[in-house]
Amino acid sequence: MITTANMKNGVNVDQLVDTINAVQGNPELAKFEFRAKNNWITGGHCVTSAKGFYGVGQEDTTRQETFTMECDHPSVLLGEDKAATPVEVVLHALGSCLTAAMTYHAAANDIDIEGMESTLEGGIDLQGFLGLDPEIRKGYDGITVKFKVKSDASEEQLRALAQFSPVFDIISNPTPVSIEFVK
Amino acid sequence: MITTANMKNGVNVDQLVDTINAVQGNPELAKFEFRAKNNWITGGHCVTSAKGFYGVGQEDTTRQETFTMECDHPSVLLGEDKAATPVEVVLHALGSCLTAAMTYHAAANDIDIEGMESTLEGGIDLQGFLGLDPEIRKGYDGITVKFKVKSDASEEQLRALAQFSPVFDIISNPTPVSIEFVK
Repeated sequence: MITTANMKNGVNVDQLVDTINAVQGNPELAKFEFRAKNNWITGGHCVTSAKGFYGVGQEDTTRQETFTMECDHPSVLLGEDKAATPVEVVLHALGSCLTAAMTYHAAANDIDIEGMESTLEGGIDLQGFLGLDPEIRKGYDGITVKFKVKSDASEEQLRALAQFSPVFDIISNPTPVSIEFVK
Repeated sequence: MITTANMKNGVNVDQLVDTINAVQGNPELAKFEFRAKNNWITGGHCVTSAKGFYGVGQEDTTRQETFTMECDHPSVLLGEDKAATPVEVVLHALGSCLTAAMTYHAAANDIDIEGMESTLEGGIDLQGFLGLDPEIRKGYDGITVKFKVKSDASEEQLRALAQFSPVFDIISNPTPVSIEFVK
């Protein structure tokens, strides 16, 4: 399944093979914990920072930068439109994760990808969020992702690679969310 | 349930009441469609742009800016660490959405919120993503959100407000994702 080519699709295949072998030898290395801190600014505007994470058996020491990301809401949703909405950020996470899953797993399977882009759409009925109808869900009814991939791989191959995406799993299957209030 | 105070928690309560009344009179106004476009750069690095959306019965004309958001992966995940990972972006979307849901619904219920911050953690076993064990899920096993809220509201009240969050719904319940490949 794995070739020994060095770089494919921008992925270091040697390092990928080493990672897979290391995890097969010691599954504890595969346990990751990602973290973020969110600070409310005002109304529907807030900022998240992310830096530290745990993985490969230790607290990460390689990341130098703290990444900051904002969310806001457009004027029709009572915001100041300073950043994308949280539900648009979900589309960003999903598109990015599906794309990375395809490029990584294509690299591991010796499949070349020359280019890839996608559009994502999600429909939502805000009667749910507004509490006007308890029968209407608060989130997206569904999300459609349309990929345009420049590759000799078949649609079936690409679709199989996309299934490895963690965010695709998080969204399409239930993910337990525990909310605590601390002093 | 609704007061006529103008601004609360940074939310224009008059506009919020008007919105709720308008949607009650015409539920079609509550139908929104959000969109994003993702472009692969290389490896696990890509960029998303979001601008246009549909809502309140029409294509939005108010948003001036196209928001761009990047994802990458840290070096231990074979990336160049130029931006947060997709799974960290999920935490950003969730924290931001829970926060906005609480501030908006608190405003609608005449509850003052003076400050709010949260930390989010998600655990993930990458044996799932790597395809080493089909029994292990690819996404987060679970996400823990810890809120620190400066408010006279009780924990029970705040917890009830948080339930309105669309992203909380998207993550904690199944959301259908349709993946298509186009030429």
